[in-house]
Amino acid sequence: MNLKIKKDILLESLLHVSKAISSKNIIPVLSGIKFDLKKEGLYLTASDNDITIQSFIASKDIDSIEKEGSIVLQGRYIVEIIRKLPGNVISIEVIDEYKVWIHSKTSEFNLNAINPNEFPQTNLNDSKNPIYMDKTSFKNILLQTSFATSTQESRPLLTGINFKIEENKLECTATDSYRLAKSIIDIDTTVENPINIVIPCRNLIELLKILKEDNKKLEFHVFSNRILFKFDNILFQSRLLNGTYPDTSKLIPDEFLIKMVAPTQELLDVIDRASLLSSDRDKNTIKLETKNNKMIISSNAPEIGRVEETLDIVKETENDIIISFSSKYMMDALGSLTTNKVELLFNSEIKPIILKEVGNDKITQLILPIRTY
Amino acid sequence: MNLKIKKDILLESLLHVSKAISSKNIIPVLSGIKFDLKKEGLYLTASDNDITIQSFIASKDIDSIEKEGSIVLQGRYIVEIIRKLPGNVISIEVIDEYKVWIHSKTSEFNLNAINPNEFPQTNLNDSKNPIYMDKTSFKNILLQTSFATSTQESRPLLTGINFKIEENKLECTATDSYRLAKSIIDIDTTVENPINIVIPCRNLIELLKILKEDNKKLEFHVFSNRILFKFDNILFQSRLLNGTYPDTSKLIPDEFLIKMVAPTQELLDVIDRASLLSSDRDKNTIKLETKNNKMIISSNAPEIGRVEETLDIVKETENDIIISFSSKYMMDALGSLTTNKVELLFNSEIKPIILKEVGNDKITQLILPIRTY
Repeated sequence: MNLKIKKDILLESLLHVSKAISSKNIIPVLSGIKFDLKKEGLYLTASDNDITIQSFIASKDIDSIEKEGSIVLQGRYIVEIIRKLPGNVISIEVIDEYKVWIHSKTSEFNLNAINPNEFPQTNLNDSKNPIYMDKTSFKNILLQTSFATSTQESRPLLTGINFKIEENKLECTATDSYRLAKSIIDIDTTVENPINIVIPCRNLIELLKILKEDNKKLEFHVFSNRILFKFDNILFQSRLLNGTYPDTSKLIPDEFLIKMVAPTQELLDVIDRASLLSSDRDKNTIKLETKNNKMIISSNAPEIGRVEETLDIVKETENDIIISFSSKYMMDALGSLTTNKVELLFNSEIKPIILKEVGNDKITQLILPIRTY
Repeated sequence: MNLKIKKDILLESLLHVSKAISSKNIIPVLSGIKFDLKKEGLYLTASDNDITIQSFIASKDIDSIEKEGSIVLQGRYIVEIIRKLPGNVISIEVIDEYKVWIHSKTSEFNLNAINPNEFPQTNLNDSKNPIYMDKTSFKNILLQTSFATSTQESRPLLTGINFKIEENKLECTATDSYRLAKSIIDIDTTVENPINIVIPCRNLIELLKILKEDNKKLEFHVFSNRILFKFDNILFQSRLLNGTYPDTSKLIPDEFLIKMVAPTQELLDVIDRASLLSSDRDKNTIKLETKNNKMIISSNAPEIGRVEETLDIVKETENDIIISFSSKYMMDALGSLTTNKVELLFNSEIKPIILKEVGNDKITQLILPIRTY
């Protein structure tokens, strides 16, 4: 393998694929980035067996391809070396079986490389049924749900986001069993057979880091055990979580005894201040109480003091409520809403709290109350 | 105590004094900020027994002083509460002996406070001999020396910066016994008796965080066991380290067998790249070699690879040298220099390396070489 390439072009692609390098990898070759130089261009691939990312640089964007070939370079080092090299154009040459000479201007690195045959062969093939959707909608639906996934590995399915696709609708659901976030968006493709899969949330977070928002569509392909995303010159593949995601549709009531509308940002600020005097030890519990068209949010930290906040609301039903919940969960849920006003729905102090955007039925946030007596 | 005050004014002063609150304080009252409301204005004081910071808000900047008095509020909470309160004007009122009511718009905090008599009485008096100097020069001399202090508490004096003042010169010296940084600046006051003190470096770093650079002078007062800085409406006092700072004047040779000049930024970049293949385990050792008017910097990490960099230099003596040193120490030293060109001075591969700015004798950086055989 022997090529000359512009530093900035190579660095951008290396940074994309480096997201798949895990620092805790026990298989040495997986700490590497595979370079495959072919006639058509340079393929860079990294994989931690959970996600695989491949970036392609077309030959027209390469200064010269002297000799095709493959090699694996240690990911942590190669990214920093390319970032810090002087000059605009870098030469990379395999000079011995697994020795690589990288030079630019007066700087020369001789690196020990790894046999490319040791690198796992990952199937990155397409399906015949691509699904297309808007990049910004995709990013938003993940931000509206991802925070509600569980971080506990004891229930692995709950560490993922459930994707259900029917006709031209994508519904994402996440829950850690104390709260639930659900959002529905339109997609550009009408699928023939419904899809119901669970994708590890942390893999989707890595995908968001390299997904640029622009007018081009995001393409993806669903298989029985993997999902492949395609955008720009990048392939991003994640494994799927095995098992059947719990049916959450019955958790969200249809009828509510107590309904009210509050200003979203003001409610968020009020809860943020009340949370100053709530403690992790008590699950950051704060209390919400309504009295006619006033909402009173309060919190009490015995050694520190007490806070009480009052907010004007519009009640849609007559009943009042007193209910306690985690300020953190409520702030996460409110932060995911995009409308100026939020609808809060209750049935009793021991039943789930539901939050919806006013005038938009597509996002549902559910929070279980905390019993304080 | 009872006052109304603009949120922004109070918050700025609270942030200044909060730098003196130590989170690991075992004396509860020292986690607090003392409020002293007097006719002339509000004094805020915090102290961890090592540094004491007092900020003063004059009565003209207070909306109303209803009742004078003192109270201590828990520092961590009061700063966050004031930061997040709605509205522009905040009311703070002691409503019971050690209970404080803070309110603004529809938000109310009732905080448990601490008896102000428990707060340590710190002497913040002036001396009759103020010393004046330029704020920017003071900031620069600290940045040029502070990195060379020791972080090991086993030799406490080396965790401080030695301030020597004679006539109208301030000389700062820092060393961790492997390297030394020295810088001299002019000050605005000519002192009658020479001053030789050691100030804990981490206290000076806290001072830099709140010292705004402007045209006003920094004033300070030196006592046998403390130094008091005055600027804006702030008093910043640090204890001094006890003992006699080692005499470092003989460590820096007068004569050099090998002298050369290199471009500062290029040398820094070259060493930064070479350090990519040096390891903490080997003290980040890299090698410098001269061959006529070329400098070759190299480093070798057996498992990873080897890097070699070449740089044009101007030799002022005939001899060449091969010498090894810590890339981290060299980068710290080069980063402190302000001239485009650096003079490197050597006597042998086992004698100290000296760096000076070209055309300015006021900064001296010394690094001990590392024997690699």
